[in-house]
Amino acid sequence: MRMTFVPSSFILSNVSPPFDKLAILAPGLLGASLAMNARGRGLARRITVWARRAEVRQACEGSTWCDEALAEPEEAARDADFVVVCTPVSVIAGLTARVAPVCCEGAILTDVGSTKSLICREAAAAMPAGRTFVGSHPMAGSEKTGMQHADAGLFTGRHCFVTPLDDTATHAVDRVVRFWRDAGMDVATVSPEQHDEIVAHISHLPHVLASVLSSQLAGKPADWPHYAGNGLRDTTRVAAGSPGLWRDILEQNREEALRAIEGFEDELHRLKAALHNRQFAAVKSILRRGKEFRDCLT
Amino acid sequence: MRMTFVPSSFILSNVSPPFDKLAILAPGLLGASLAMNARGRGLARRITVWARRAEVRQACEGSTWCDEALAEPEEAARDADFVVVCTPVSVIAGLTARVAPVCCEGAILTDVGSTKSLICREAAAAMPAGRTFVGSHPMAGSEKTGMQHADAGLFTGRHCFVTPLDDTATHAVDRVVRFWRDAGMDVATVSPEQHDEIVAHISHLPHVLASVLSSQLAGKPADWPHYAGNGLRDTTRVAAGSPGLWRDILEQNREEALRAIEGFEDELHRLKAALHNRQFAAVKSILRRGKEFRDCLT
Repeated sequence: MRMTFVPSSFILSNVSPPFDKLAILAPGLLGASLAMNARGRGLARRITVWARRAEVRQACEGSTWCDEALAEPEEAARDADFVVVCTPVSVIAGLTARVAPVCCEGAILTDVGSTKSLICREAAAAMPAGRTFVGSHPMAGSEKTGMQHADAGLFTGRHCFVTPLDDTATHAVDRVVRFWRDAGMDVATVSPEQHDEIVAHISHLPHVLASVLSSQLAGKPADWPHYAGNGLRDTTRVAAGSPGLWRDILEQNREEALRAIEGFEDELHRLKAALHNRQFAAVKSILRRGKEFRDCLT
Repeated sequence: MRMTFVPSSFILSNVSPPFDKLAILAPGLLGASLAMNARGRGLARRITVWARRAEVRQACEGSTWCDEALAEPEEAARDADFVVVCTPVSVIAGLTARVAPVCCEGAILTDVGSTKSLICREAAAAMPAGRTFVGSHPMAGSEKTGMQHADAGLFTGRHCFVTPLDDTATHAVDRVVRFWRDAGMDVATVSPEQHDEIVAHISHLPHVLASVLSSQLAGKPADWPHYAGNGLRDTTRVAAGSPGLWRDILEQNREEALRAIEGFEDELHRLKAALHNRQFAAVKSILRRGKEFRDCLT
């Protein structure tokens, strides 16, 4: 089945969509949500996807947000002027290198991976002439995975990093920034290294803590989870995320993740020493500092 | 103002409420929610409260769930057959000892404190003849505090610990268990020591981790919180709780909290060592164990 859906916003506004052919490689939670969003907002004239599994391709082609679903990444990306790679982080750079040669001249390729330094360096090095890779990380994931949880509103009001290298062409960076803004996101441009340091602390470390706490509690009596309040549920929610995806993220951002964990260990040690030595004013001071930070997270 | 509200469920059912006079000492989030709940479900013929601040007493007396609000705990508890102390943990035992002598013969006193060993031992030792203290911990708190967030439904379907000592009279334990069940809670009876070990792991440790992570992030660049996703928000939510209340909880449950922190440090060290040594199968195994636990938390 091949649909020739023309987005209503494109017709109504009579303005050309920013891209002619958007290829989304791997329509999971993020990829499918992005396709829905792009269709709804008229961000591309055509949207193709690559999905490995036949039943996923069938579901995509039965949707309003996909014009064509193909079994090979090169087929989906052929002549595309914008490609978004939405696979697990470990295969992003390789896949980008594979499809870049078949994209149209001037094509821009980006991704949605949670790590950036390795991916951006490898993908940029593999780009043929006339194609540009600009890394992205829309902070819109969840512990859920898969197309069945996709939602066009997933990106609205959320934060997105765009992470060019020093020598990435400015016009390509601008178009990627514009794409995520058009998708409803709040965009910040930082270097891949800055990105990896920031997310090691605000995303990878919280995930590690939730997983380690959950793993520790898994060794306790079987009735304990029954007594859990909302505090434990919230604190550990992200630990329900995919172990495979998170193993890859921690591998790719290993050094920054280790640094963030060490910083946490130091602060935990301070609280533990204060509690051990009955220095309750020092305990309260850490709790107060934590509250001040948390109260600022809107 | 003194209201003589008679709960409709009492009238309709024509059954005597379980208690004649319920005294709630300190109508904060838990105390006021409990009074609303008890009124709605007809758990006591009269409900009195003690509140330190005049404006809180005024607000209570203007409500449908309070018959009388008094400035001294002894006045609120005079002739009460059921007293629930809803103050911060550090003053529960002392307040219980202070009001027990003015309660009626056969009165039962309980509390809602997040720690139990110290409170139960001290309160029981201070009981005059004919009065019984039975510790309780309804797991229905939140990072919010104060009567303005009170909600009669706060307890529904949540878990409550009742923590008698070995020599606590069975009939008193049964009446406390029944009270929390009538309030809509799922009740488990455990020793104060078991309680403190369990909550050190499922409540106090998660709080410490959220606070320490937030405190660590407070030292990072001021724009980082702006990039936070829902993962960080959930993981740190409880860190918004009152530093004073949590300082007291950690003081009272110091030994068990330290043990839980040490168990966490060991597991974090295992993950860190695996990541450091590039043993990614071991990293994934901890993530998987964490996910299995989290998936069981309904």
